[in-house]
Amino acid sequence: MQKPTIKDIAQLAGVSRGTVSRVLNHHPAVNAETRQRVNAVIEQLSYRPNFSARQMRTNSSHLVGFGLLTDEVITTPYAVDMIRGAQETLWAQGKVMLVVNAGYQQDTTEASLEALLERRVEGIIYAAMYHRPIEFLPPISQVPIVLANCFSPDGAYTAVVPDEVAGGYAAVRHLLMKGHRRIGFINLGPTTRGEVPPLAASNGRLQGYKNALMEFGVPFDESLICYTNQSPAANYRLAYELMQLPEPPTAIFCGNDRTALGCYGALSELGLRIPDDVAVVGFDNQLDIAQGLWPPLTTVQLPHYEMGKWAVEYLMAVGDPHAQPVHQMIDCPLVERESA
Amino acid sequence: MQKPTIKDIAQLAGVSRGTVSRVLNHHPAVNAETRQRVNAVIEQLSYRPNFSARQMRTNSSHLVGFGLLTDEVITTPYAVDMIRGAQETLWAQGKVMLVVNAGYQQDTTEASLEALLERRVEGIIYAAMYHRPIEFLPPISQVPIVLANCFSPDGAYTAVVPDEVAGGYAAVRHLLMKGHRRIGFINLGPTTRGEVPPLAASNGRLQGYKNALMEFGVPFDESLICYTNQSPAANYRLAYELMQLPEPPTAIFCGNDRTALGCYGALSELGLRIPDDVAVVGFDNQLDIAQGLWPPLTTVQLPHYEMGKWAVEYLMAVGDPHAQPVHQMIDCPLVERESA
Repeated sequence: MQKPTIKDIAQLAGVSRGTVSRVLNHHPAVNAETRQRVNAVIEQLSYRPNFSARQMRTNSSHLVGFGLLTDEVITTPYAVDMIRGAQETLWAQGKVMLVVNAGYQQDTTEASLEALLERRVEGIIYAAMYHRPIEFLPPISQVPIVLANCFSPDGAYTAVVPDEVAGGYAAVRHLLMKGHRRIGFINLGPTTRGEVPPLAASNGRLQGYKNALMEFGVPFDESLICYTNQSPAANYRLAYELMQLPEPPTAIFCGNDRTALGCYGALSELGLRIPDDVAVVGFDNQLDIAQGLWPPLTTVQLPHYEMGKWAVEYLMAVGDPHAQPVHQMIDCPLVERESA
Repeated sequence: MQKPTIKDIAQLAGVSRGTVSRVLNHHPAVNAETRQRVNAVIEQLSYRPNFSARQMRTNSSHLVGFGLLTDEVITTPYAVDMIRGAQETLWAQGKVMLVVNAGYQQDTTEASLEALLERRVEGIIYAAMYHRPIEFLPPISQVPIVLANCFSPDGAYTAVVPDEVAGGYAAVRHLLMKGHRRIGFINLGPTTRGEVPPLAASNGRLQGYKNALMEFGVPFDESLICYTNQSPAANYRLAYELMQLPEPPTAIFCGNDRTALGCYGALSELGLRIPDDVAVVGFDNQLDIAQGLWPPLTTVQLPHYEMGKWAVEYLMAVGDPHAQPVHQMIDCPLVERESA
């Protein structure tokens, strides 16, 4: 029989993997009833966490596994699950992960990378806060490296990124299946309405939007697409403006869950109810917002945890820094709640 | 003349310190107009960032300054500003900060601490995701240590924590100044309504609530106090229930901004407008929610950035691991927006 995993426990106990991991870590913020249910499943499956501090201490040359270098994943709230996915996978090997935040400047990035390499990590993960091409990364030959949530334009490094096209497709297909034919799209962009922004996410999701429309034989209507500069005021205003179109949308696909939050505000202001009057789908599955909104937000999962996990598993499998680079895409599945 | 700081630039440019730091780091998510304004102020003040990668590289024995050990600050979205505050303060010294996430178990905490000490950090910051007493921390004598957002019940370690009483007081005083006399309080708790939860935050903020009422001669009414288990459903339900009281509140003080998000949902469902029918104040200043809600949320700042900064400044000033421990409280100021 296969060894049970945290995922198995989560499924059987009907909770998230995060909750299982909190119970295992004796985290106080799990209520007694849930803790009991999870512990019952843990006992039932005879699950034993792999992490052993004893092993770590008796084998201290292997105590530190990989180093994770990041632009600002650990100083912003958006992609912290990437750290969690990498760390839990490495903990299962009885190893600690060293993390350094390097910002966006070349000199701090180089110095931080050196700091990690000098501490003899067995591999490097470079993790970006948002899906983007990286502009510089000094060549390193000592240990293997993997990029998470980013990629090198020349394909020189192994990279794991979200499948943005599939994510956009999943969101819009869901709305089309519910009968919607006029679907507004508040896409992400640093620029004002109409300009195509230089973000992997925006272009990919727009492609997914178009693919879904095409599959359902719905003509593409440029007037339903707009771009938010990602300020709360813009999110609110763009949703408001979409509803002023001569033929307003019956559903709005939002570039992220913060955009959906602004969209909820505008629809509430207009006296429109979600999902009865207008359906809303977000992107990211940023839990505080997606679960906290009323009604809870149907959205698309950014696979941060999975990318972190994949990166560690890749480094564990590939010890050779000169291995042929791989470009891995991870699915962005729809998370259905009550807004669409 | 004093050297200009990021704070000076932020004030003159009318932006947050975060925005200034993004401009300095060439972060793409700053719009052109803001970037230009900030750069103009930088030029005007002849500001030069202190961080020098050249210095870091030529003096590599000092390349790594302090190690930051945390339960889960870097794998959850709530307290990442503590990392940012510590890191930016250390960067100003041309030094890198090593970060390790250790979870809540004693064995992983000990192993992670050892991993940092073996890498010869000059000091240790132990940072907790939420304000709490720490249960275990192995004695270390090699380097000084400081606790951030947590404390040892016996006072054996230097600690920096938020002034929760002052935060609760600031929120409720603001509502009283606006003329409110029936102020509901959805406090944080792991338990069901009425039980006092074992959280430094809850007890401190309740004390601040009572202090403010007393100052204004308003009698304390137990029926206006409830405790959320911090699930979105509970946040929504408790706000809804408060409004069903025979004499409902005219203002609701929420234990955190996620609670306020649920509260907005309930008030919208009841057809009540914020702040005209009911005023709402949150806690945390979790920006995605506080700025993203409509109307934007008046809330109380958890001083994460300042605690991280204070911790690094303390370690820089105190090289002696046996120095007399200090217990430092940092203010939680009101952030006024439009909900109260």
